[in-house]
Amino acid sequence: MMFELQTIEDLHDAALAQRLQHRLDHKTKPLGALGRLEALALRLGLILGTEAPALRQPQMLVCAGDHGLAARGVSAYPSDVTWQMVENFLAGGAAVSVLARQHGLALTVVDCGVRHDFAPREGLLIRKIAAGTADAGSGPAMTDEQCRQALANGQAVLKALPGNAVLLGEMGIGNTSAASLLLARLAGLDIAGCTGTGTGLDEAALQRKVAVLGEVLALHGAATEPLAALAAFGGFEIATLVGVVLQAAQERRVIVVDGFIASAAVLVAQRLQPHVLQRCVFAHCSGERGHALMLAQLGAEPLLDLGLRLGEGSGAALAWPLLDSACRILQEMASFESAGVSQRAG
Amino acid sequence: MMFELQTIEDLHDAALAQRLQHRLDHKTKPLGALGRLEALALRLGLILGTEAPALRQPQMLVCAGDHGLAARGVSAYPSDVTWQMVENFLAGGAAVSVLARQHGLALTVVDCGVRHDFAPREGLLIRKIAAGTADAGSGPAMTDEQCRQALANGQAVLKALPGNAVLLGEMGIGNTSAASLLLARLAGLDIAGCTGTGTGLDEAALQRKVAVLGEVLALHGAATEPLAALAAFGGFEIATLVGVVLQAAQERRVIVVDGFIASAAVLVAQRLQPHVLQRCVFAHCSGERGHALMLAQLGAEPLLDLGLRLGEGSGAALAWPLLDSACRILQEMASFESAGVSQRAG
Repeated sequence: MMFELQTIEDLHDAALAQRLQHRLDHKTKPLGALGRLEALALRLGLILGTEAPALRQPQMLVCAGDHGLAARGVSAYPSDVTWQMVENFLAGGAAVSVLARQHGLALTVVDCGVRHDFAPREGLLIRKIAAGTADAGSGPAMTDEQCRQALANGQAVLKALPGNAVLLGEMGIGNTSAASLLLARLAGLDIAGCTGTGTGLDEAALQRKVAVLGEVLALHGAATEPLAALAAFGGFEIATLVGVVLQAAQERRVIVVDGFIASAAVLVAQRLQPHVLQRCVFAHCSGERGHALMLAQLGAEPLLDLGLRLGEGSGAALAWPLLDSACRILQEMASFESAGVSQRAG
Repeated sequence: MMFELQTIEDLHDAALAQRLQHRLDHKTKPLGALGRLEALALRLGLILGTEAPALRQPQMLVCAGDHGLAARGVSAYPSDVTWQMVENFLAGGAAVSVLARQHGLALTVVDCGVRHDFAPREGLLIRKIAAGTADAGSGPAMTDEQCRQALANGQAVLKALPGNAVLLGEMGIGNTSAASLLLARLAGLDIAGCTGTGTGLDEAALQRKVAVLGEVLALHGAATEPLAALAAFGGFEIATLVGVVLQAAQERRVIVVDGFIASAAVLVAQRLQPHVLQRCVFAHCSGERGHALMLAQLGAEPLLDLGLRLGEGSGAALAWPLLDSACRILQEMASFESAGVSQRAG
C-alpha cells in the first residue's frame, strides 16, 4: 500500500535522562522509593523534552467503527450497540464519559465508520469511511484506499487537537476480533492464544470465534505487511487510531494506551515506526486474553492490572492521575538540600 | 493489657449487596467489564451503607514516631530524618504533601512520639507519648500504659476529623522493623521472610537487621497477644494508627491502607476486631519484602502494584482517584434502559 510515512525521531537523549534521574534521586525519599512512578516521570520528561514536564489539555479520543465480521457471531452484542454507545458517550452516561469528566479530559468521539448516521453535535467528528467494514471472512475488510484514508483521517484529527497528551479510546462491536487477528499475524502467534471472550462470550461461542478467526487468518495469508494486515482485518477505528498514534508520536505528545484494541493500533504503528513506543504509556493490562501477549510484544509494562475489559479508553482514563502525579513529583517535591533533610548514613 | 474495645459491627448486608450488584450489572457495559473497580464500588457501598456512595472530606493522617531500636542500625537513615520529614510534610515538599494537594486530601500530621519538639502550627497535632520508644532489644518498646494511651490518642484524633474516609500514612525511622516483628509474631512466620531493606539497606545490612530482629523476637517470646506484641515492638505511630483504624471502623468510615507499616496497624486491629477489614481498601502492594505476606494474611487484594516503598501514605494517595471513580461509576453511569442501548444477544 502507498502511504507516505513521516519519520519519527529517536527520543534517546542521554544528557536529559541523566538530569531527570539526578532530579528524582535528590527528592526527599529513599533512592527509587517511588518505584515505577519514577520510571514514568523519566519517560514523561523524555517525551516532552524537559526536566519539568507538565501535561496540558489532555485529549480523550474515542474512535468508533463497525465490523462486517460481526455478522458471523463473533460478539455477544449486536452491531447496533456501536452507534448506541456513541450516543451514550456524547450524552455523558458511558464509563469513559464519567471518567473523562472526573479527570478533566476533553472527550472527542470520531465516527470512523459506524453503521449509522449521526446528527452533528459538539464533541462528535464525522470521519466516516463507510458504514462498517466489509466482512473480512470473504475479502479484505477495507480497500487499500479506505485504509489510507482512515490513517490520514487519524493524522488530521490529532493535528487539530490542542494539548500535549492524547488518550486512545475506541468502540466497535467486533473489534476484539480485528485486534486478535492483527496480533496473531504481526507477531506470528497462534490465533487461539490471541482470542478472548470480548464483551462476554461463553466457552462454546469463544470456540466458534477462534474457528472463524482461524479461517479469516488463512484467507488473508498474503497480508503479512502491517498495512496489508490492517486493510485485511480492519477496522476503520483501528486504522484511524494508527494515524492518531503516528501523528501524536511525530509531535512528541504523550500517548496513553488503553486496552487490547488500542494496543493493536500501537502494534501496527510500531511495526511501521518503532520509535512511536518511546511516546507511549501503557495504562493497564486488560482482562481480555491476548492483551498480555500483546504487551509482551511491545515490551510494555502497564500501570494498572484491574481486570478491566471494557475499552472506550476507560483504562487510560483510570490511569491518568498517575501521569499527573509523576509530573508533580518532579515539579513540586523538595530535595534533601532544600528541605534540610539528612542524607542516608551509609 | 486493659483496653476497652468497642464492638465493630458486621457490615454483612445481603440485600444491599444485591442492590449494588444489580445496579452495577445494569450499567452500560458488559457484565463485570470494569473488573476490580466494580468490586471496589460494591465495597464502598457496603461500608457507607448506601447504593450511591459518595466520598466526603477525605483525611490523610500521617502518624509519626521514633524507635529506640533504630540505634541498633536497622535503618539506612538516622532517626533525625523522622522530625525533618515531619517538617517537610508540613512545608508541602514531601511526596505525600504533593499527592494530597493533587487529590484534595486534607493532610494532618500527628506527632505520636517523635524525638523532637515541634513548634505548633496548622496541620500538626501533638499527641506525643514520649521522645521515641524504648529499645525493643532490651525491653518492651512501650509500657502498657503508653500503648493504651497511643491507642486512645488515635481514637480521639480520628473522632475529631470530618469526612467519611481516612487514608493511613506514617513516618518513623526504624518502623519497618516494628512492622516486620508484628507480622512475624501475629502470623507465626519466620522473621527473615518478613524483613526487607526498608529505606534501602544493602545485603549485608539486611542480614544484620534480620539477626537483630530475630533476637528481639526471642526476647519477647511471651508477647503473643496483639496488644502485648504491639507494646513489645512499638511504635507509638503504629499504636496510634491502630486506634485510628478501630475508631474509623466503628464509625463506618472508608479506611485506605497504604503500605507495610500501615498494614501492620491494620493487622493488629484485625486481630482485635476482625470486622475492621470490611472497612479497608488496600491501596497497593509495596516493594518492601513482607508486604505481600502481610496482605495474604489479611486476605487483601491491593489496587496498585508499582513497586512503591516510601510509606507516608503516598501509595494510599496514589490509589485515591480509583475510589472516587468507583463511586462515580455507581452514581453517574447510565443504565442500558436509560441510555437506550441494546442488551446482549445471547
